[in-house]
Amino acid sequence: MLINGVPGNSIDVHDRGLQYGDGVFRTLRIEQGHPRHWQRHYRKLEQDCAALDIACPDTELLAGELRQLAASLPDAIAKIIITRGDSARGFAPPFAASSSRILTISPLPDFPEANRLQGVNVRVCDLRLSHQPRFAGIKHLNRLENVLAAMEWNDPEIAEGLLLDLEDKVVEGTRSNLFLVRGGELCTPDLSRCGVAGMQRDRVLDWAASNGVACRVGQLGLPDVLAADEVFLVNSVIGLWPLRQLQERIWQQHPFSLRIGEWLNNATD
Amino acid sequence: MLINGVPGNSIDVHDRGLQYGDGVFRTLRIEQGHPRHWQRHYRKLEQDCAALDIACPDTELLAGELRQLAASLPDAIAKIIITRGDSARGFAPPFAASSSRILTISPLPDFPEANRLQGVNVRVCDLRLSHQPRFAGIKHLNRLENVLAAMEWNDPEIAEGLLLDLEDKVVEGTRSNLFLVRGGELCTPDLSRCGVAGMQRDRVLDWAASNGVACRVGQLGLPDVLAADEVFLVNSVIGLWPLRQLQERIWQQHPFSLRIGEWLNNATD
Repeated sequence: MLINGVPGNSIDVHDRGLQYGDGVFRTLRIEQGHPRHWQRHYRKLEQDCAALDIACPDTELLAGELRQLAASLPDAIAKIIITRGDSARGFAPPFAASSSRILTISPLPDFPEANRLQGVNVRVCDLRLSHQPRFAGIKHLNRLENVLAAMEWNDPEIAEGLLLDLEDKVVEGTRSNLFLVRGGELCTPDLSRCGVAGMQRDRVLDWAASNGVACRVGQLGLPDVLAADEVFLVNSVIGLWPLRQLQERIWQQHPFSLRIGEWLNNATD
Repeated sequence: MLINGVPGNSIDVHDRGLQYGDGVFRTLRIEQGHPRHWQRHYRKLEQDCAALDIACPDTELLAGELRQLAASLPDAIAKIIITRGDSARGFAPPFAASSSRILTISPLPDFPEANRLQGVNVRVCDLRLSHQPRFAGIKHLNRLENVLAAMEWNDPEIAEGLLLDLEDKVVEGTRSNLFLVRGGELCTPDLSRCGVAGMQRDRVLDWAASNGVACRVGQLGLPDVLAADEVFLVNSVIGLWPLRQLQERIWQQHPFSLRIGEWLNNATD
């Protein structure tokens, strides 16, 4: 672990990340010692920091520190947390607050190959996401909704939970973004009121645009998901997992999803 | 500072308080070495922990640690943070997660006496609170809304900002609860969809009940606030501050508020 560039495993209890969840984060893959899709991840980190008025560290600094961490574990998952730094008691930060950066690395998770090829079983979470347009899309540290949703089940056969909002619109998975395939076109939930707009979601949108595949971003209900030809989940750690089962619906074939998953795993852009 | 009973000033970066804001807190006064209204504070801490399924430390343990901290600063503000403890990467906590407790102490703030007697100037924040009935009322660590609201102004003449929700209902101050006085009765916003139900709010409700003063808990708009005979803010640090000015409205006299403030400051229940 590197805390503001220094090896260590702890942070000051006055850090606003702990006190208020006042920060942002990214989770990314390290392959052969290098952060994958670094430019895309950094751009998102920079945007999220800007949206909360947090000073974003330089891209070279962060990439260098990730490579330093990766020296001991060249294929890994890295997590970057940027907080608004330390402060005395009180919600308003001091003028001089400078951000803190917390970089950690952990081994690649050992997901079954079947998740990627045959798909996963998914449930609908009871928790409903609140609407907060001011933070929507941002990967910030206020993640209590995701925690409580993930605590709803412990059946290892269920790989992910779908999150709906207070109006019962489908938003995302607890740690992934969601796409539907309908008649050769894609659709994905609009995230302007809640949810996290992940890096892989951007990549799927870009893939669709450059391959002449229409992708509608809009409001979707659970019936839309259940009626889709294919459904898939994406994030930087799992890549792409098709849905195999949701409630009574079973999807046996995932030709479209597998094609996009192949591209997500292999393309460098 | 005491971290799980041990003097220190840092926590593990894997603590879920930092990673996800997965915890709760309380801020309270220490007077002559003893936590004020400890039973009330502990009851709220216990309820908030239960609502998030976090193990709440024993009341004797926490009170003893507060007295230990207070040995060096007998009149102070203490903050207690209880998190769901450490865990590996991933929103779902491990089964064996045991909570962490972080106790800090800081000097009493030096508020002008006029805040309490003549009242304070207050603004309306631009940020609107989201509705999340699952967490409403809980003093949890996901406080990005409060942070961004408090960042909206830096005029030292403005003592507090009012927070409205996405439907423009008045909910609370960024760090206080709100009461209106109307025709000798009280009203305070309903907090079943958002907001934090502070300990002093409970005390005002109890005071009203035992003094035969009606207190309506319901939905209030900004026009209701501006039309009230008196308006006041409460929390455990400030006690009670009447409103002196909000937008064009000026309140010169605060007889009802001063009476309740006197009781809040002096009563032991």
